Amino acid sequence: MALTLTILGSNSALPTSDRYPTAQILRVSERFFLIDCGEGTQMQLRRNKVNFSKINHIFLSHLHGDHVFGLIGLISTFGLLGRRKALTIHAHEDLKCLLQPHLDYFCADLPYQIHFNDLRYDEPAIIYEDKKVTVESFPLSHRVPTCGFLFKEKAKEPNIRKEAILKYQLTVPEIVAIKDGHPFIGEDGNVVPEENLITPAPAPLSYAFCSDTRYSRRIIPVIQGVSLLYHEATFLHELKDLAKRTGHTTAKQAAVIARDADVGQLILGHFSSRYKDVSLFENEAKEVFLNTALVSDNTVIEL
Amino acid sequence: MALTLTILGSNSALPTSDRYPTAQILRVSERFFLIDCGEGTQMQLRRNKVNFSKINHIFLSHLHGDHVFGLIGLISTFGLLGRRKALTIHAHEDLKCLLQPHLDYFCADLPYQIHFNDLRYDEPAIIYEDKKVTVESFPLSHRVPTCGFLFKEKAKEPNIRKEAILKYQLTVPEIVAIKDGHPFIGEDGNVVPEENLITPAPAPLSYAFCSDTRYSRRIIPVIQGVSLLYHEATFLHELKDLAKRTGHTTAKQAAVIARDADVGQLILGHFSSRYKDVSLFENEAKEVFLNTALVSDNTVIEL
Repeated sequence: MALTLTILGSNSALPTSDRYPTAQILRVSERFFLIDCGEGTQMQLRRNKVNFSKINHIFLSHLHGDHVFGLIGLISTFGLLGRRKALTIHAHEDLKCLLQPHLDYFCADLPYQIHFNDLRYDEPAIIYEDKKVTVESFPLSHRVPTCGFLFKEKAKEPNIRKEAILKYQLTVPEIVAIKDGHPFIGEDGNVVPEENLITPAPAPLSYAFCSDTRYSRRIIPVIQGVSLLYHEATFLHELKDLAKRTGHTTAKQAAVIARDADVGQLILGHFSSRYKDVSLFENEAKEVFLNTALVSDNTVIEL
Repeated sequence: MALTLTILGSNSALPTSDRYPTAQILRVSERFFLIDCGEGTQMQLRRNKVNFSKINHIFLSHLHGDHVFGLIGLISTFGLLGRRKALTIHAHEDLKCLLQPHLDYFCADLPYQIHFNDLRYDEPAIIYEDKKVTVESFPLSHRVPTCGFLFKEKAKEPNIRKEAILKYQLTVPEIVAIKDGHPFIGEDGNVVPEENLITPAPAPLSYAFCSDTRYSRRIIPVIQGVSLLYHEATFLHELKDLAKRTGHTTAKQAAVIARDADVGQLILGHFSSRYKDVSLFENEAKEVFLNTALVSDNTVIEL
């Protein structure tokens, strides 16, 4: 089962003519999750042919404008498109009070419900769960309360080998028990090796989104072993003091996090517009963590 | 002196992947006026290489989301770019209350002042004037209070012919009087023909913006003889009843307005996204008013 990440916007606070502010759409186990919603997100969703009706959850890392200014437009467009399904927005509790007057004024008679789920900023928390996926928030370190998000597929059951069903004339309860890890005794009284009975399930995939944040080692146990990590890298390491002061990270620091959390792959974004040549970010990160790539708008990553 | 109109966004309420919602930048007599501010306007300003610091006045026709959702992002970006000059926003009086909480939350410590000029909706009014330009608002007919805007260069003085200065040994007071329209008597006692003394000033240019609105003949005397008219044309004439109900205009109706107001040139935009082939708008309008063109994003018109 695939995990697909589409970068809708990858710029830092100042939009440029070729990069939108932060927004991403994550498809995991057929769920579509929107992460942050900078200005222009709805245009980018259309450009990337994302079905608007599939988005039922929006996760907002923090309430800085470059991560949220596209929200009211998207909510409005959902309504104009005749949406009926409820939309849940996971965000800082201040969002409700900020958004409600605009909903009342610009989106009166919205044909669907909006639910607000207030995030916590003291410790990690499961904020969404269904049969196939969990979403966990965890505190980051920025100038305002900020959460990162960890999206994890749940462990899947192994598959029974067809030939085993035939050979051992397996009943349904026996299949369930084998999938559950119980040993199966053959007619000769011996345990049948597991590999003769099942093909193991693919390892569950996971994605962690970490932006905006200064370098914060306390996220490492939370994101340990994640398949794909997006970490902001606003500055190069020469500006690490500025990064710390402004609540951001350098490319090198992001790579250290990736290395020490033993992630599968690191992707970087949110580059300061002062840098014309963003390849410098990749070079700096790769000295620490080789499997690093830069993202730009409309980048699609499939696991 | 040139008038340049750049279309930043020309779509109706539902953005598409290739059209932004309404916004235009008008350059007239070296002033830059932003008209409406749909989502994504700041990206489009950058894309069209407009100098942000030149924009001191924003005119908002009405408070529907597709005309204003880009405003907070633009205001924020002006601040991040270190703007010091005051910004005046001409809009419905409701804007202040809607915007202020967001300014307080997202744009605290904005390094420049914002002035709000409340528009009136009962009759035309001069809302801006300087040595070279006037801007007038005038009521349109939409589902919410809406104004159109008329931008007019002031009449310019004619230029004295250099050869006349030499021939008649004109003094400065004489030049001033001639430019002012007073007759000049030559040495032979006869009035020197005006065309021997002056080259007439180019006719002042003007631009009228009319969106969103249903067909409304009362705007005709206001926009009479305007050099360039932008009129919304959301529907084709087959849907004139729907146009009236929703407060919009058909291509044919926009052309009738242009013809009866004897405008120089008509440009149409704000096409409903139900139409895949917008050339139908041009065809329909041209049957009534030949000098019609359609606009799309990034269209630049120079007079």
